[in-house]
Amino acid sequence: MTARGLFITVEGGEGVGKSTNMAFLEERLRGLGVDLVVTREPGGTALGEELRALLLQPREEPMAAAAELLLIFAARAQHIEQVIEPALAAGHWVLCDRFTDATYAYQAGGRQLPVSLVRELEQLVQGELRPDYTLLLDAPVDVGLSRAGERGELDRIEREQAEFFERVRATYLQLAEESSGRYRCIDASRPLDAVQSDLQGFCAELGQCWNARLG
Amino acid sequence: MTARGLFITVEGGEGVGKSTNMAFLEERLRGLGVDLVVTREPGGTALGEELRALLLQPREEPMAAAAELLLIFAARAQHIEQVIEPALAAGHWVLCDRFTDATYAYQAGGRQLPVSLVRELEQLVQGELRPDYTLLLDAPVDVGLSRAGERGELDRIEREQAEFFERVRATYLQLAEESSGRYRCIDASRPLDAVQSDLQGFCAELGQCWNARLG
Repeated sequence: MTARGLFITVEGGEGVGKSTNMAFLEERLRGLGVDLVVTREPGGTALGEELRALLLQPREEPMAAAAELLLIFAARAQHIEQVIEPALAAGHWVLCDRFTDATYAYQAGGRQLPVSLVRELEQLVQGELRPDYTLLLDAPVDVGLSRAGERGELDRIEREQAEFFERVRATYLQLAEESSGRYRCIDASRPLDAVQSDLQGFCAELGQCWNARLG
Repeated sequence: MTARGLFITVEGGEGVGKSTNMAFLEERLRGLGVDLVVTREPGGTALGEELRALLLQPREEPMAAAAELLLIFAARAQHIEQVIEPALAAGHWVLCDRFTDATYAYQAGGRQLPVSLVRELEQLVQGELRPDYTLLLDAPVDVGLSRAGERGELDRIEREQAEFFERVRATYLQLAEESSGRYRCIDASRPLDAVQSDLQGFCAELGQCWNARLG
């Protein structure tokens, strides 16, 4: 019987270096010989990527907060059924750029939708599925936003105000505290080499899991 | 203070003549002087129509049943916030081609998702909002499907099997029995003039509501 794979998520606000550090993690984990599926939310399937485009494009018609939340979980339901569960069941590891903690951070924290609503949908769509490890890249909001601003045109979410992102960050830090077992929190406001030296430590920890699985 | 408008929905399986009879109802109600907003689900907003296209287009990747359900309610949340609630609050009547009863019929009945799931999402997205009147156009499945087949290319839902549509019809009939106060059930397997003579009776009943509202 194949051991079930690990489900690893990477979280963080705008401009914390998620893309760069996802690529770094992917390279190191593949270097360790891990059978890795790299994916992202919202997205990760044909339907999910179409929904991602709908969610991020700036619109004339304001999007109802409940509609946004349901679209995110619709994309997630598809992602779990088509990609995440089959990969984990086959013993692959899944490295996912954002997952449900982002929904707590952005929709419950940022948009101030009831946490209970997110929790209900999480239960409904995921059943028992939760990440085994979550890497949080944390940086003060002004640092992240000024980096994100350098990338050019802002999407619908990036156009929110600073207080929105303060609530997002506070929610992430609270989740990291409540779920300290699975969370690894990295100060992403430091220079990249300092951040990646910490990531290297996280990869070493994961490498032990991979080897233990073989033994 | 403006009296709140009536919310009227039209339901029925494939090929029961919903479009023709929606147009007939609209014409008669406008003829009575009703301030009418005519809309449909999934759809009725820019976002909703994009989601309708996603839901109906045949896809290579099978759509997870939970994803389908959440997309329908996402479109509904947007529709209620942008169209239905503002219209009813302004005293307009809303005539809607399909609403949540269709979700009970297709996703709980047809796809056999748990009814409790539909009920939870209904509560979450609609709060207290329910239709005041629901017109059910009912016909045996073989009659409806042979009519729908004459329209040409079938969409993703129309490609389901006959047993699926039998469950859809049975669910509609059960809803009509459980909610007989708001339901008007019309035998749509008869010739159009017989159907529309019944519809005329329904319009007369609604006309009394409209006039009572003015007095």
